[in-house]
Parts: sequence; C-alpha cells; structure tokens
Amino acid sequence: MNAKSPEDILDLPLSEFGFVFEEASAARVAGRMAVTEKCCQAFKVLHGGVSACIAEGIASYGAVVASGYNRVAGIHLSIHHLRPANLGDSIFAEAFPVSSGKNIQVWEVRLWKTGKTGEPDKKKMVSTARVTLFCGLPLPDHVKDAPDKMKSFLSKL
Amino acid sequence: MNAKSPEDILDLPLSEFGFVFEEASAARVAGRMAVTEKCCQAFKVLHGGVSACIAEGIASYGAVVASGYNRVAGIHLSIHHLRPANLGDSIFAEAFPVSSGKNIQVWEVRLWKTGKTGEPDKKKMVSTARVTLFCGLPLPDHVKDAPDKMKSFLSKL
Amino acid sequence: MNAKSPEDILDLPLSEFGFVFEEASAARVAGRMAVTEKCCQAFKVLHGGVSACIAEGIASYGAVVASGYNRVAGIHLSIHHLRPANLGDSIFAEAFPVSSGKNIQVWEVRLWKTGKTGEPDKKKMVSTARVTLFCGLPLPDHVKDAPDKMKSFLSKL
Amino acid sequence: MNAKSPEDILDLPLSEFGFVFEEASAARVAGRMAVTEKCCQAFKVLHGGVSACIAEGIASYGAVVASGYNRVAGIHLSIHHLRPANLGDSIFAEAFPVSSGKNIQVWEVRLWKTGKTGEPDKKKMVSTARVTLFCGLPLPDHVKDAPDKMKSFLSKL
Repeated sequence: MNAKSPEDILDLPLSEFGFVFEEASAARVAGRMAVTEKCCQAFKVLHGGVSACIAEGIASYGAVVASGYNRVAGIHLSIHHLRPANLGDSIFAEAFPVSSGKNIQVWEVRLWKTGKTGEPDKKKMVSTARVTLFCGLPLPDHVKDAPDKMKSFLSKL
Repeated sequence: MNAKSPEDILDLPLSEFGFVFEEASAARVAGRMAVTEKCCQAFKVLHGGVSACIAEGIASYGAVVASGYNRVAGIHLSIHHLRPANLGDSIFAEAFPVSSGKNIQVWEVRLWKTGKTGEPDKKKMVSTARVTLFCGLPLPDHVKDAPDKMKSFLSKL
Repeated sequence: MNAKSPEDILDLPLSEFGFVFEEASAARVAGRMAVTEKCCQAFKVLHGGVSACIAEGIASYGAVVASGYNRVAGIHLSIHHLRPANLGDSIFAEAFPVSSGKNIQVWEVRLWKTGKTGEPDKKKMVSTARVTLFCGLPLPDHVKDAPDKMKSFLSKL
Repeated sequence: MNAKSPEDILDLPLSEFGFVFEEASAARVAGRMAVTEKCCQAFKVLHGGVSACIAEGIASYGAVVASGYNRVAGIHLSIHHLRPANLGDSIFAEAFPVSSGKNIQVWEVRLWKTGKTGEPDKKKMVSTARVTLFCGLPLPDHVKDAPDKMKSFLSKL
C-alpha cells in the first residue's frame, strides 16, 4: 500500500491517493499526484472529491504553519471543477492565503495538469477551491504531539 | 486492501475509505462508513476532504440515476464542516436532490454520527454539502460501458 | 422612496428593495417582497444579487438574536439560484439555523415564489443560501447602540 | 433618487446603491461605489449582501459579453467577506473570468477599498466572490431587446 513508515506520513488520505508534498510555508503549500485508478470515478476521470481532499488538506497545513503550529479547523470548502483530468494525467496543486486573520483564514487552492516536464500548464486548470479555517481551538490532550509532528514533517520538505 | 473484485466497486476512492453504499435512487442516496485511521487528518479527526469526497460521490451517483443513467459532471461543491467526527466514530451519509433541472442538478448531502444502533443521531450533524452538477455531456467511447456498470451496481443495492 | 422614519428601518438595503420583515427569533427569520423593477436585472428577472442580499440580511439578524444581541459578522455566503422569479412575482424568504456554535453560526435561507394567498409555493423554490457568521467580535464605540436598536426592531415583529 | 433616464441604467439594483460601471469586456468588468448609508447594515459597515449584489451583477455582464451577448443565468455565487468597509469608504470592484466554457462560465470578483487617489489598495481586499453562470438559455420574447440594450450600454463605457 505505502512503504513509508507512519511517522513519514503527514496526511493519510492524501497519502492513499499518492499525493506528495513538495513545499509548505505560511505563504504557499504545493505538491503533486499522478491520477491513478484509485483517484478516479466511474468515467475514468479524477474524482471531484479527490480534488476536494487535496484542497482541504494542503490549505489546512498552510493554515497550521501560518498560525504558528496551532490547531486549525476547516469550516467550509468551496471548489469549482473546471476541466477533467484523465486517468494517467499528472496534477500539480498549490495553495496560498487569501486572508490570514487571527480568527479566520481563507486559502485558495489551484490544481493544474502538468506537461511532460512536470511544470503546471497554466492554461489547464483542473479545479480551484477556497477553504475557510477557524483558528483558535484548544488542542485536546490525546493529540498534543500533533503540531510537533507536523512541524517536523513540514520543515523537512 | 479491499477484497472485493473491481466489478463490485462503484467508486474507488470511497471504497478506499471503507464507505459502503446502502441505497441509490433519483430521490435519495445513502451509505455509511467507520472513521478509521486512513480517513483522519493529523488531529485524529475525520478529514474534511474525506467528507467532501463522500458528498461529491453520493450526490453524483444520485444525479446519474436522476438523469436516466447519463453522464453528469460535478461543477461545484460547497461543504460546511459543523462538528468533528473522531477516530472510531461511525458516519451515516445521505443525499437528496434540491433541484433536478434538465441541464443543472443541485444535491444536498448530510453526514451524521451514528448511535450504537447505527441510526443517524440527528442532533450530531458532522457536515452538510451542496453539489452542483451539469447534465448533458457526451459520453466518450472508452467509457461507454460506465452507465451500464453503474446501473448494475446501483440497482442491486 | 420609503415613508418610514429611519428608526423604523432595520436594514436599509433590504428596505430599498421593499423587503418587509415578518418574524425574527433565534430559530427563524422570515419576510416577504414584491419583485419590482428595482429588484430586477436586465432580463426582467429577480437579480441574483438581491436574493443574496435578502439571504445575507435575514441570516445575520437571526444570528444576532441567537448570539444574545451581540455583534456578528458574515464571513461567507453561498447561494444557489434554482428558478427565476419574474417581475410582478412575490417572494417569501425564510432563514433557520443549521448550526449555532459559540464562535461560528451557519444559517440556511430559502426563497420561494408565493401563490395568490401569499403562502410560499413549496414546489417553486427560487434560491437557497447558506450564510456563515463569526460571533465574538468586539463592538466599536460608534455603534454601541446598534444591538439595542435591533432588539427594539426585531422584538416588535 | 437617480437622475439618469432608465435607458442609461444597465442594472437597477446596482444603480440604487450608487455603483458606477467603468469598463466591461469579455476579459474584465470594473466599477466603483461610495459606501453610503443605503449600502450599510446596522453596524454602519458595508452590507455583505450589497457586496454580493455587485459581484453577481458585474460577473453577469462580463459573462454576457463573453457569450456574444446571449442570455446567461447565474446559478451559484460564493462570496468571502474578508474585511469591513465602513460608511464613507470607497470601493473598487473588478471581475475576470476563471473559466469560459460554452455551457458554464466561472468569474472571480474582488472588491477593494480605494485610497485617496481612487486606486484600489491591494492590501485591503474587502471581499472576493466566485460566480457560476449557465450559458445557453433561450431568450423569452418580452426581453428580446435586452442584449442589444446591454451591448449599447457596455460598449459605451
């Protein structure tokens, strides 16, 4: 399934889909994924929910970094599916903050198909999302180590 | 990973998360899922993107049935995350049409935690989504059999 | 323009459009409006922005009541336009809470055409919106009297 | 109320709020507005519904131009309110296409406060919206002249 040890995985659902993080800061989160069978719906096209999963995931980690590694909670996601990505295509995903308030952050996410060199083809946006996150939730005891694990993972990218 | 043969799986991403369809008609789609590790984000809470994936998936299959097993394409998803579902919880998901036009369908999806009997606890809505779908796309040759496979799967529920 | 004295107007934009509040509590806000020229876009159909204005307005007042007459701020609105309302039609609007947290409230709004008796025609939903509001903002000095004015207006309905 | 003759008004609701169009093409629509009393909610802040009204309006006119002056219908609007604009502030609004398909267009709208020179202050975004429009509706007889009137208005900007 996945040869990585659990400590090396930040986000299990994204890892299942084969998504690889490339960069994470308070200003930008990026990564990429091949569109394999397990990412597709019945028409052999990237499942819109997988795009949404990537958007929710990478925006959240950006917001965690921007909040100084506190707990954040996604409260809303809105995603437009603009163009199909087919089985066999490759996807580049990028998130950046629209607004970083003390209480509320809004992040924008864009997914593109990539060309042969791996560069995103800016004429082929697959989807674009906006994720609204609430910052300032207390951190329950049983996940007290989660921010440190995230920091360790994200700072190694 | 999953003992089912590929023909028995309608939606690979949802199947990966352990989601099981229970009902699918033009008026309602429903199913359920246990919140396992692979459905969670770093705080051991149901990943918002997994909720979005369920919403996009079950709304789409409802729209396919409502359109008479034609191709539909999700063009927008909006989801509110209202309440966390924790690792170990169980989730019930339900979709129903808000509007079923010839060109555009809008479906609403609700996810609840379930009590011990498996019944959704209507006081514990986890998230609620709206999925907008465009109907009337041509069906490419290489997936001409997809509607029949869907009909076969969905009509057996 | 509007014969009412300023003290009798809760929401100036809605008042401009001829919207009349009928009920406001923490559980429900309702009102109605005739679709006049000044509510329409160039195709003589209710302007989608006017529907959005009604949704944002009535959800906000419900959230103000639900928060105990504190300041709330709309942070997001999502609205589906389902069916046109024509010049000359009448509209009934209703808002109710989806989720009423201490920090975040989500309200749903529905607009219907009304029949001859003024009753909403439940088969003719014009639009449906979800409004996300943040509660817990401080109240600036120059609007310290706003909650009292709102309470006075809303409690007289 | 408004000294302009009806032929000079493209969008009555926006005109009521004092919004003035400055530019309209298939690539960009722009305009501006002073935040007067009739644009505000009870806390003397720009009403979120007025922002939504501007977004829906200017995106729609852009989509009409992009479709070759056909009828388009807004099917969804999503708006994030990021920062308050106060009574007395001035607002600059801009719309541009995210995606211009034959059936579906998605436009993005941004509202900024303006500085003393009237230039938008790019650090002070008030709100940002996405409007989804369906193109390809028939044009009813009683509004057959609407596209020509729009063309006449928009091409004179």
